[in-house]
Amino acid sequence: MNFTMEEAIEVLERTPQTLEYFLSGLSPGWLQCNEGEGTWTATEVIEHLIEGEKHNWMPRLEFILQEGDGKPFPPFDRYSHLHEPKSASWEQTLREFKTIRSHNIAKLKALVDPERHLELTGSHPAFGSVKLRELVSTWVVHDLTHMAQIVRVMAERYRADVGPWKEYLGILKK
Amino acid sequence: MNFTMEEAIEVLERTPQTLEYFLSGLSPGWLQCNEGEGTWTATEVIEHLIEGEKHNWMPRLEFILQEGDGKPFPPFDRYSHLHEPKSASWEQTLREFKTIRSHNIAKLKALVDPERHLELTGSHPAFGSVKLRELVSTWVVHDLTHMAQIVRVMAERYRADVGPWKEYLGILKK
Repeated sequence: MNFTMEEAIEVLERTPQTLEYFLSGLSPGWLQCNEGEGTWTATEVIEHLIEGEKHNWMPRLEFILQEGDGKPFPPFDRYSHLHEPKSASWEQTLREFKTIRSHNIAKLKALVDPERHLELTGSHPAFGSVKLRELVSTWVVHDLTHMAQIVRVMAERYRADVGPWKEYLGILKK
Repeated sequence: MNFTMEEAIEVLERTPQTLEYFLSGLSPGWLQCNEGEGTWTATEVIEHLIEGEKHNWMPRLEFILQEGDGKPFPPFDRYSHLHEPKSASWEQTLREFKTIRSHNIAKLKALVDPERHLELTGSHPAFGSVKLRELVSTWVVHDLTHMAQIVRVMAERYRADVGPWKEYLGILKK
C-alpha cells in the first residue's frame, strides 16, 4: 500500500488550481474540442469533477462513517452534469471547483482520523465491500485520470497538424 | 488544420507554470515513482522538457529559418537528460523550465511571422520534409503527452490502493 492521507491530500488540493491555471483564458477551440461523438470536452470534464465533489466523494465517505457497510451507497449519476442547464461562465466554473474542493478537503481533515478510520468499510452498489482508504485513493486517481483526459482531448485536436511526428507522440497512439 | 500560432502559444506558455503549481512541494513518493524499470519519474520528465527547450524545438525552428531543407536537422538525443549529473533542487528545476520556455516563446514570437513562415520546410533526419507549423504543433502536443505521462505515472502508484475501483479508472487500463 502506498496510500497515506497526507500524500493523497497533496494531490487533491493541487488539482483545481492546476486546472484553473492551465485552462483559464484558453481559446474556445481548446475548450470545446472533444474526441468525437459522445466524448467530453475539457469544460464537461470540469463540470463532472464538480458533480463528484457534490455527490460522490465526501457524501460516500460520510456515509461510511455514519452507516458503515449495512446499506449500499446511494447511487451517483456520473453523467448528471451533461443534463443540467449551464449558467456560470467558464472562469466561474473553474472557481467553483476550487471552492468546493477546498471545502471538501477541510471536511475530510476534520472527519477522518487516519489512525482510526482508514480501514472502515462501506458497501458499493456494484463492488460490494470497499474501504474508506480505497475511496480516498480513488478520489486522487480520479483527478489524475481526468487531467490525463483533458490533455488527451486537446492533443487530439492537433492529430493532423503534427504531420509525421505523430509517430513519436504517445498521446496520439490509439 | 486546427493550428494557429496564437492558440499554440496559449498552451506553450501555460505548461511550465501549470506543472510548477502541480509538482512543487509534492512528497518524494510522488516525484520519484515511475512505471517500472526503464520508465521515467515526474522529475525526469521535467528534465527532458528542459532539454527539449535547449536542443530541440527552437534550435530546429531556427535551422528551418536559416537553412531551409537543404541539410537535415542536427540530431537530438531524447535521453540526454538521463546521463547528466544533477545539481539543481527540484524547485530550481521547475523554475528553470519556466524561464527557458518563456525565453523561447519570446524568440518564437520575434522570429516567426505566421503570415510568411508557417509553410517553410526543414529536413527531419527520420521523416524527411516537415513544415515549420508541424514543428510548432508537435511542440504543443509534446507538452500534452508529457503532462499525460506525469499524471499516469502518479496514478500507477495507487494502482493497488484503489481496490475494486480500478475498473472505472481509465488511466489504470493498460
